[in-house]
Amino acid sequence: MTPDEFRSAGHELVDWIADFRSTIGDRPVEARVRPGDVRASMSLGSLDGPIGFTELLAQVDRVVMPGMTHAQHPRFFGFFPANVSLSSTLGDLMSTGLGAIGLSWQSNPALTEVEEVVCDRMRRLVGLSDSWHGVISDTASSGCLVALLCARERATGRSQLRGGLQRERVALRVYASSQAHSSVRKAALLAGFGLDNLRWVPVDENHDLDPAALAEMIADDLAAGHQPAAVVASVGSTACTAIDPVVAIVEVCAPHDVWVHVDAALAGTAMLVPEFRGLWAGVEGADSISWNPHKWMGTALDCSMYLVRDVDALVGPMSTNASYLASDSGDRVTQYRDWGIPLGRRFRALKLWFQLGLDGVPSMQDRVRRDVDSARWLASTIAATPGWSVLAPVRLQTVCVRHDPGGRSAAELDAHTLGWARRVNESGVAYLTPAQLDDRWMVRVSIGAEATTRRDVQAAWAAMRSEAEDR
Amino acid sequence: MTPDEFRSAGHELVDWIADFRSTIGDRPVEARVRPGDVRASMSLGSLDGPIGFTELLAQVDRVVMPGMTHAQHPRFFGFFPANVSLSSTLGDLMSTGLGAIGLSWQSNPALTEVEEVVCDRMRRLVGLSDSWHGVISDTASSGCLVALLCARERATGRSQLRGGLQRERVALRVYASSQAHSSVRKAALLAGFGLDNLRWVPVDENHDLDPAALAEMIADDLAAGHQPAAVVASVGSTACTAIDPVVAIVEVCAPHDVWVHVDAALAGTAMLVPEFRGLWAGVEGADSISWNPHKWMGTALDCSMYLVRDVDALVGPMSTNASYLASDSGDRVTQYRDWGIPLGRRFRALKLWFQLGLDGVPSMQDRVRRDVDSARWLASTIAATPGWSVLAPVRLQTVCVRHDPGGRSAAELDAHTLGWARRVNESGVAYLTPAQLDDRWMVRVSIGAEATTRRDVQAAWAAMRSEAEDR
Repeated sequence: MTPDEFRSAGHELVDWIADFRSTIGDRPVEARVRPGDVRASMSLGSLDGPIGFTELLAQVDRVVMPGMTHAQHPRFFGFFPANVSLSSTLGDLMSTGLGAIGLSWQSNPALTEVEEVVCDRMRRLVGLSDSWHGVISDTASSGCLVALLCARERATGRSQLRGGLQRERVALRVYASSQAHSSVRKAALLAGFGLDNLRWVPVDENHDLDPAALAEMIADDLAAGHQPAAVVASVGSTACTAIDPVVAIVEVCAPHDVWVHVDAALAGTAMLVPEFRGLWAGVEGADSISWNPHKWMGTALDCSMYLVRDVDALVGPMSTNASYLASDSGDRVTQYRDWGIPLGRRFRALKLWFQLGLDGVPSMQDRVRRDVDSARWLASTIAATPGWSVLAPVRLQTVCVRHDPGGRSAAELDAHTLGWARRVNESGVAYLTPAQLDDRWMVRVSIGAEATTRRDVQAAWAAMRSEAEDR
Repeated sequence: MTPDEFRSAGHELVDWIADFRSTIGDRPVEARVRPGDVRASMSLGSLDGPIGFTELLAQVDRVVMPGMTHAQHPRFFGFFPANVSLSSTLGDLMSTGLGAIGLSWQSNPALTEVEEVVCDRMRRLVGLSDSWHGVISDTASSGCLVALLCARERATGRSQLRGGLQRERVALRVYASSQAHSSVRKAALLAGFGLDNLRWVPVDENHDLDPAALAEMIADDLAAGHQPAAVVASVGSTACTAIDPVVAIVEVCAPHDVWVHVDAALAGTAMLVPEFRGLWAGVEGADSISWNPHKWMGTALDCSMYLVRDVDALVGPMSTNASYLASDSGDRVTQYRDWGIPLGRRFRALKLWFQLGLDGVPSMQDRVRRDVDSARWLASTIAATPGWSVLAPVRLQTVCVRHDPGGRSAAELDAHTLGWARRVNESGVAYLTPAQLDDRWMVRVSIGAEATTRRDVQAAWAAMRSEAEDR
């Protein structure tokens, strides 16, 4: 495709996207397809090309649109917000259009140094001290894996440079609350610790990790000759936005040099607003933090901030050295390839820069406050409605809810819960995600799509009542 | 940013990119900045916003452009090609504009099923049988890590579900040639094998892995009570495009159930052209393949195909299960989150679809043939020029070259090599990457930027002669 063809098709696509975003609220939130429908609708001919841009766009309309569940919809309350602001969309387009390739500082100095400046700005925006250093990675899942790999290497004095984890004679242990994200289990298993060495710490009545129980587990493990290596603290857990007490966790871990990773994938964005920073009090004593601007803040996926205090503890285990990556610039420059798993990197700092520059921070702070207010309104409304209950404290923007018409067994109630949530989703009015809490199903209303107003929350609540109470 | 603001700014940006790509050949290829220059030029004010789009664009022009080394430049011969076709740029923009979020099939059925169809198409395009199944991941570095994790879990019968790698009593071994990419060492170390268990297999005179030496190492390790777990075969190594003999490697490995991962990050694209498929003969007996369309083929970074034959051997070690990710659709759908490390996924299949659909496969095949022809022309021209030599067979599009004016020590010759390569880069005419081969510096001329014609190769060769011979 020539630049002139790109110019013409690009204008067409920009208009298409602007039209799509303008009308997204008129569409059903959830895709109305069954497994295999999209696959069957995709003519292989379209992959053979060359075809014209307008024809391709028509194919995308026909194949993709029916299969979209719209995360950008104002009544999307599923999972966590997965906002893609249009300002960051432009930054991402510029990144792709520039075709920059990050392998080393030398392969594209701008890519590296803009990322340094933007990461430093992001750090300050959430109130972290200058002992923290950030890098943009893809997801918090990768961030958790990197954290546990670094913890493993710190605990073993770099076993990777000798016989590896397989030659260690002491069992390294990892701790997280039973509410921790699924990626913690996955990361611990991939890092080689093994399920037997992953210890689930009990939680209190708010589903926050119980630091006394953690201290006891660590003491028991030490007494048994094991080596505590890492704790993952969830600040804003996925199911119910539980907030593990970072201050207390750091206190328990410090004497034993246990790595503390703070998973604030969602909640990091709340820290843009000073009044919420108490939620991660103690974070300055942690070793690493994951925060996904691609969630609530609205930077286009994938944009996960990974922050560390001790850069050497990150770069040591992650470093690469190869002659074709050598650079005259040596130690004076940051080599981000040694800050994570991939070698090749996109110019992802641009999408953050564009969002900060075009939208401004105050608009993001306003959205955070708006969504928390909506969540509090919804929670109090639900609590005041007979048959309905809020199952966990509303720490931020997620409300955990159940409707109990009475007289049902636990299994029947679970079926009722899953049933009304499914009917709400099928109605197309709103999209909610059921999840388990204390081994029972409930429904999460996770507020925070960029376009979500109070009226959208009210519409979702009306749909919930209608689908749950009328059966 | 509202859809209407996006519409207006988007048109401006599309024009900016079209203008940039039209004039890229007039710019110096290599950035002319020193460490810290870009950082210093970036006013923090621009991150405070909100500012207008035209003003932001001017800031990017001022801060970013001087710090760009242009991978899309027709005289970029560094590293490997890192092409970002404008057709795939549009596909990537559509992905971002749609704001789709891939967590599970249910979170966006179109994202999953289009990826299935596109990956299947890609598989067929490089002549692989239907026993292969593909997924789009970020980079071949991640692909290699995933392969070694799966190899580790297969060799230990899923030690991750017990005491992990740290409870294994047999040393697991990993093999690769001394020419293997730096990511192999990194992946083996991250997967926990340890440097002592990473064995570098000798190479033949073409720098291809010697399968007899591999067989001997495996036999020795078995005799010593160790367990061979994985071999990484490089099909197109980074320094000199060495081609490890996959047929022979598979033959050696099969009796011992050793995982064979084929790293064809660059060379996978050559397989679009049937006459090159002999280079990976035997690949059908491998366990996994990495191929980066974001290199030579020109799909915007990041787009790395990871292909496996045994999906269960991938999904087992990589799977996640959490109630909030549950889907009614159950086993009937593909859950790509269980095919790699990250949970959240972009709609990356769109950039492949757009490139295939808009450019068509024949144009990509033509480019592969064009670049190989240019490399052969350059190699024969160099070989016929006094003082110059080609140091490795030209298997595809990379020419390894040295200029020896005579009468210099090894160290002096290394300095001469690094010197003229640096001067070529500083001239802005072309960009080359020096690398080590047999512990001596040489220069790689890696042909394959989308816009590179024979005339650009001739210009680079003239610059090389001028900078090397005149000193």
